[in-house]
Amino acid sequence: MNNKPDAFMACDSSYDDARLVLFGAPFDGTSSYRPGSRFAGAAIRAESFGIETYSPYLRKDLEDFAVFDAGDLDLPFGNAVEALSQIETAAATILADGKIPFMVGGEHLVTLGAVNAAVARYKDLNVIHFDAHADLREEYLGEKLSHATVIRRCHELLEGGEIYQFGIRSMTMAEDEFVQRAPNITQRKYDLETLDDALVKLEGKPVYITLDLDVLDPSIFPGTGTPEPGGVSFADLMEAIHMLSHPLNIVGCDVNELSPHYDQSGVSTITACKVIRELILTIL
Amino acid sequence: MNNKPDAFMACDSSYDDARLVLFGAPFDGTSSYRPGSRFAGAAIRAESFGIETYSPYLRKDLEDFAVFDAGDLDLPFGNAVEALSQIETAAATILADGKIPFMVGGEHLVTLGAVNAAVARYKDLNVIHFDAHADLREEYLGEKLSHATVIRRCHELLEGGEIYQFGIRSMTMAEDEFVQRAPNITQRKYDLETLDDALVKLEGKPVYITLDLDVLDPSIFPGTGTPEPGGVSFADLMEAIHMLSHPLNIVGCDVNELSPHYDQSGVSTITACKVIRELILTIL
Amino acid sequence: MNNKPDAFMACDSSYDDARLVLFGAPFDGTSSYRPGSRFAGAAIRAESFGIETYSPYLRKDLEDFAVFDAGDLDLPFGNAVEALSQIETAAATILADGKIPFMVGGEHLVTLGAVNAAVARYKDLNVIHFDAHADLREEYLGEKLSHATVIRRCHELLEGGEIYQFGIRSMTMAEDEFVQRAPNITQRKYDLETLDDALVKLEGKPVYITLDLDVLDPSIFPGTGTPEPGGVSFADLMEAIHMLSHPLNIVGCDVNELSPHYDQSGVSTITACKVIRELILTIL
Amino acid sequence: MNNKPDAFMACDSSYDDARLVLFGAPFDGTSSYRPGSRFAGAAIRAESFGIETYSPYLRKDLEDFAVFDAGDLDLPFGNAVEALSQIETAAATILADGKIPFMVGGEHLVTLGAVNAAVARYKDLNVIHFDAHADLREEYLGEKLSHATVIRRCHELLEGGEIYQFGIRSMTMAEDEFVQRAPNITQRKYDLETLDDALVKLEGKPVYITLDLDVLDPSIFPGTGTPEPGGVSFADLMEAIHMLSHPLNIVGCDVNELSPHYDQSGVSTITACKVIRELILTIL
Amino acid sequence: MNNKPDAFMACDSSYDDARLVLFGAPFDGTSSYRPGSRFAGAAIRAESFGIETYSPYLRKDLEDFAVFDAGDLDLPFGNAVEALSQIETAAATILADGKIPFMVGGEHLVTLGAVNAAVARYKDLNVIHFDAHADLREEYLGEKLSHATVIRRCHELLEGGEIYQFGIRSMTMAEDEFVQRAPNITQRKYDLETLDDALVKLEGKPVYITLDLDVLDPSIFPGTGTPEPGGVSFADLMEAIHMLSHPLNIVGCDVNELSPHYDQSGVSTITACKVIRELILTIL
Amino acid sequence: MNNKPDAFMACDSSYDDARLVLFGAPFDGTSSYRPGSRFAGAAIRAESFGIETYSPYLRKDLEDFAVFDAGDLDLPFGNAVEALSQIETAAATILADGKIPFMVGGEHLVTLGAVNAAVARYKDLNVIHFDAHADLREEYLGEKLSHATVIRRCHELLEGGEIYQFGIRSMTMAEDEFVQRAPNITQRKYDLETLDDALVKLEGKPVYITLDLDVLDPSIFPGTGTPEPGGVSFADLMEAIHMLSHPLNIVGCDVNELSPHYDQSGVSTITACKVIRELILTIL
Repeated sequence: MNNKPDAFMACDSSYDDARLVLFGAPFDGTSSYRPGSRFAGAAIRAESFGIETYSPYLRKDLEDFAVFDAGDLDLPFGNAVEALSQIETAAATILADGKIPFMVGGEHLVTLGAVNAAVARYKDLNVIHFDAHADLREEYLGEKLSHATVIRRCHELLEGGEIYQFGIRSMTMAEDEFVQRAPNITQRKYDLETLDDALVKLEGKPVYITLDLDVLDPSIFPGTGTPEPGGVSFADLMEAIHMLSHPLNIVGCDVNELSPHYDQSGVSTITACKVIRELILTIL
Repeated sequence: MNNKPDAFMACDSSYDDARLVLFGAPFDGTSSYRPGSRFAGAAIRAESFGIETYSPYLRKDLEDFAVFDAGDLDLPFGNAVEALSQIETAAATILADGKIPFMVGGEHLVTLGAVNAAVARYKDLNVIHFDAHADLREEYLGEKLSHATVIRRCHELLEGGEIYQFGIRSMTMAEDEFVQRAPNITQRKYDLETLDDALVKLEGKPVYITLDLDVLDPSIFPGTGTPEPGGVSFADLMEAIHMLSHPLNIVGCDVNELSPHYDQSGVSTITACKVIRELILTIL
Repeated sequence: MNNKPDAFMACDSSYDDARLVLFGAPFDGTSSYRPGSRFAGAAIRAESFGIETYSPYLRKDLEDFAVFDAGDLDLPFGNAVEALSQIETAAATILADGKIPFMVGGEHLVTLGAVNAAVARYKDLNVIHFDAHADLREEYLGEKLSHATVIRRCHELLEGGEIYQFGIRSMTMAEDEFVQRAPNITQRKYDLETLDDALVKLEGKPVYITLDLDVLDPSIFPGTGTPEPGGVSFADLMEAIHMLSHPLNIVGCDVNELSPHYDQSGVSTITACKVIRELILTIL
Repeated sequence: MNNKPDAFMACDSSYDDARLVLFGAPFDGTSSYRPGSRFAGAAIRAESFGIETYSPYLRKDLEDFAVFDAGDLDLPFGNAVEALSQIETAAATILADGKIPFMVGGEHLVTLGAVNAAVARYKDLNVIHFDAHADLREEYLGEKLSHATVIRRCHELLEGGEIYQFGIRSMTMAEDEFVQRAPNITQRKYDLETLDDALVKLEGKPVYITLDLDVLDPSIFPGTGTPEPGGVSFADLMEAIHMLSHPLNIVGCDVNELSPHYDQSGVSTITACKVIRELILTIL
Repeated sequence: MNNKPDAFMACDSSYDDARLVLFGAPFDGTSSYRPGSRFAGAAIRAESFGIETYSPYLRKDLEDFAVFDAGDLDLPFGNAVEALSQIETAAATILADGKIPFMVGGEHLVTLGAVNAAVARYKDLNVIHFDAHADLREEYLGEKLSHATVIRRCHELLEGGEIYQFGIRSMTMAEDEFVQRAPNITQRKYDLETLDDALVKLEGKPVYITLDLDVLDPSIFPGTGTPEPGGVSFADLMEAIHMLSHPLNIVGCDVNELSPHYDQSGVSTITACKVIRELILTIL
Repeated sequence: MNNKPDAFMACDSSYDDARLVLFGAPFDGTSSYRPGSRFAGAAIRAESFGIETYSPYLRKDLEDFAVFDAGDLDLPFGNAVEALSQIETAAATILADGKIPFMVGGEHLVTLGAVNAAVARYKDLNVIHFDAHADLREEYLGEKLSHATVIRRCHELLEGGEIYQFGIRSMTMAEDEFVQRAPNITQRKYDLETLDDALVKLEGKPVYITLDLDVLDPSIFPGTGTPEPGGVSFADLMEAIHMLSHPLNIVGCDVNELSPHYDQSGVSTITACKVIRELILTIL
């Protein structure tokens, strides 16, 4: 008799063999509207058996690739500084071992920890950012570390790299104006068009992918903290993900903002599972 | 310490300063399938803080406009005649004060009260009607005043004006035939195409806008009394709303049929909030 | 006073007068992810009064056609062999009486019983199959009779007939390769394009239609056992259904995999009702 | 093949043979808090197969008694006067045929129609009333016909009979004072004690039983329009129901205020089914 | 026309006239299991119209008392120190004005801010604590400020006063042992017996009441962050609350841990409303 | 970095060290009303961190005992014979290794597999059975292996041992009569009284405990396949469990019929976790 660990579908390689390491970052302490993304890691592991390991889009099977699921980090609630520090350490370790960190949030702020680790290793790191929200506020409710400021903080970390945003449809007037002044941020509103242009420019450069699942329309993805109508379809997101097979140097990736307790039908969780499966198979 | 009224996002002007007055009409007494739209006003006020006050589509911020949220009217349950009379009085007062009434239903029947007030002031009033259902029955379950007859009743009130329907995908055979005979009703089935034609014809004329939210597909708007598959997308509705910035004389507007108790995920309520935000910013 | 049977909307003809006979097959014994489709028949009967009997698409009213709703079969739980045998008997009786059997699942395995009856009568039977899943496994969890193997079993029954699959977006690598080798299976992935080609080839031939409702995107159809993101829209499915008015010899039909307990908003059930209404009106 | 009517468990006698006739009164037009009790009749019929027909408490089986389920009446929405008139007619017919009418609400106002019929036949009719609310307002929101006034209206109809209330825990100060002045109302607050005293006094007299299911604590019965914490337990209600086997002349009965759309777990509906089963078996 | 503030039932006195001031403390940053109590204040205001303002238990009506509802404080998410500071300021102001602060949480940690203000004014303050959990940890997940440590922190603040705990049924072994050593903590496990003893000892002394709603059994109160089976009934809690009319000097009070998003049936929110109504009417 | 297995709270001993082995039996193929208990094992593991490992009732902490959580067995859907065979093998292995098997269902039929293994080892095995339903049918829907027949099947296996049933409140008339004739079945209806008598008689004898969680009232345990109003309270069940510390020889135990998808509030799952914690701590 043997205790079977509850890994995300077919991600049962050993750490040493793995080229990509999945881990959860269960932090949602700055969520202003509806918290609960801390439960996302557990949810995708439990529900991932609802879909196949095989991608007909890519004609690849996750069972044929070496991925290690490290489980969720043990993050403190309500202490953003400490949580980000632990995330950074985890990502830095994986990077140092020559593997790709693939983080499952948590709220979007967790990205800052991983980008910090990535930029330490790749000075000219670039970021591709899929989201409904610009996340470019200078501060939010008096805090500099927030899900609403995370890309602004990432922007401050970059040294020469670029940020490409896609699907953005919610922001303040100040954020809208900030983007127009910022030389190294390219923002595509509402849809994912022009991703191909970005990919050409990023060829051969180190890239971090951060995907806030609320870039999807809430019709297909209601289970998130701040649902924003008018998002992209699942088919559009699939197409964009598959375009990432372009010759990039993807050094890290995260998928965040699934909030399972707002996912009564279970469709958001399954959608997150399929997005993660396709992203991993595209990267590997 | 000060008791903060719970207004719809940023609609905190004084009545006197306001150009547009928002009010709720919590009546659902004739709902045949799933009642509960009486709770819509309270729901959109409580949830409106989930989205921004700024519209990137229009590059306008609701905080820069003078809107007064008058709260919900105190309507009797199950007495349609009295409820319509109170709605008419409220709308007439706002119109007499040179302001635009913006009503949040309630079931669709509430429109009749507001149109009654508007047509008293603007003899040649026209109506733009977004809906899944034609609402053109002569009577329904033996009643002449019903959510299923409301546009037929409005049609009887108009004196020379036209009704333009969009997105209609449910009706009886009798309603279908009635539209074909009615000289002053133009019905666009299934989608919102040809709105531009209508707007050209309505230039400079007084127009009342009535938007039954079930014109949206139930994938994005399940929280309504009679969900009808095959509706328009949120993006299509946004585009239509923004076309209303055409040089029209919009004298009144309503948004109706949100039924929050059927909105388990909260997405329908947020969608209603965003539709209202964009409509107000387009009108002002 | 008279006890009114609870038939699906307007399907209140007598058996003898009916050209088409609706019946439920409440079996979900092999569902691997989320069971509950056994409740679908009861749900569509109870909720069908939420939509009209008239189809504006087809300008036909269900009240003008003779359809008999025979209620649900009394199937044993957890005994697939016996359940399929009872389904086969029911379908065979209806076929022998010169009527069209229209079955409401239950899980997809129920199709095997009806196809068995149909192929006994029409040796050269063909199948049009709408689904998210290929259902072409040789076996599943050690069982040959399963919702995941049902079309493979149907394939074995056919004698010269063809299978046309549409909307398929989930399968194993083995299934994907099997289709490429199978001479008489034509699979269209992701969408419903090329249905017109199939219809031309099937002109005048006996055809059985099996529609797994999860072919629809889970945004509009979350209430199903194995929701699979990336499906077709309701409008696309409507268009496909209406194309079936092509001169075919439709000898049987089923609609399956509605699981009402996962349909919190009620939208999936109403969607199933509308699909069934349009299918019946197209066939008759 | 035969279309099986969807009767409440084992209530499949013919009308002529039946000693007791069950019928639904789907009206909720005056519900002030959460409407939806109109769906109760359909819900108890669909879910009644979840419990046995045999009562171990009474050692009787519903299959051994002749009960006819007449389905739901066809009541107009939002027209209380007309709805009450139809209910009165139905109850009067059943009474005239020497049978016991057993009505399933709907909101509590429906009781007025049945009591009207009963008092026409039995001048000295008495009422036993189980409820959380006194329902003794003179008027409510300006209306005399309301779920909140129904027992006051019944009180006005009685000619010498008494009203015994049990479990009452919500009222206005005016209602509280009214009861203390009314000579022929006996109110037991919070629990069902003293029912035995009432039964002794009512021996041999004609009695109508009206049971508002919200007399139960919302822990066991959340699916109702106005849940009121602090109610009686299911065991207490069972005991009270079984005490009604006392030598009374029960001439009519109703059970009301199940609102199935607020019954997410299904427990309220099953509870209503069991209450109805035990009431019928006690009366017969 | 006048914008009506959305106060808790009948709490519409002016601040100056009020003897008791209700305010919300929407903070849930340290919730470890299920967050969301930040929404409690808005929920009880919106739903309080579902019950009467009159208490038959006390024969008092809230409309006859001067209570001011100050709305929710504007607290930062995820910054416990700052949130507690703002709560302390609010409570201190109310106390300084000679009024009783009545706080609606939020998670239980909010109590610390109010107790801090109360102990500054009343050196010999005592605390009556109703809860499922002891909340006496020295620290929790490395944090000293947490919902799981709040009574330990309050204990450190007291100068001679006593803490009386009731209904406690969950703790660590360390907490269990701590209570046995602590001279000024009296803990009653599982039920509310011995409250009368405590009240005798507290006669005439300043007392702060903190009521974690999860002291109730989850059957009646599922809508909370950490439901703990085996709690007290609503009737038991009512009786305890009414005992507080004993000659105490109640200087402050809070009710916390309602988490409305886990309250699908609405019963928890209504229960909280009734508890608050009875508490206010008992104190005043 | 280390992949943490997802064990039930603190059950992280090795198999060799463990005195008690927990395992899940995810089978619900014969559920007639609402399936889904197959998900119970996963649910209790995921949610068990919501309560403490320490029992204040017993003053014991699960962390101080050696328990191994073997995860869920890999059972086929819809094949009861094969599922029972696998369960029997698992239980027999644990028994052969001198450990106590503790099974988490699944539907109640799974008990038959474990009792089969236990009776093979202990010829004079006795069964203590907590349940709402007698489960003593000779067959159900034509099947001999069913959740409704499982105790009848167990009864046939026993060789001299006794069955003691508690809390039974639903059965057919035939089952009721069967118990009265059966010499070695003692049935306590509605409550758990007389358990002490049974324990005295069972002193020193081998006993298997089977606990169908629907013995609890649906107010505290709605998340089950066939909720039956009128059950025992959580406090009553706790008391009964703690009585099992009587000098018995408990050789096996199971807890079954949690159906998490019907547990919207999460309270049923937490209740199951607490029942299991107390049972393990009582047995060890």
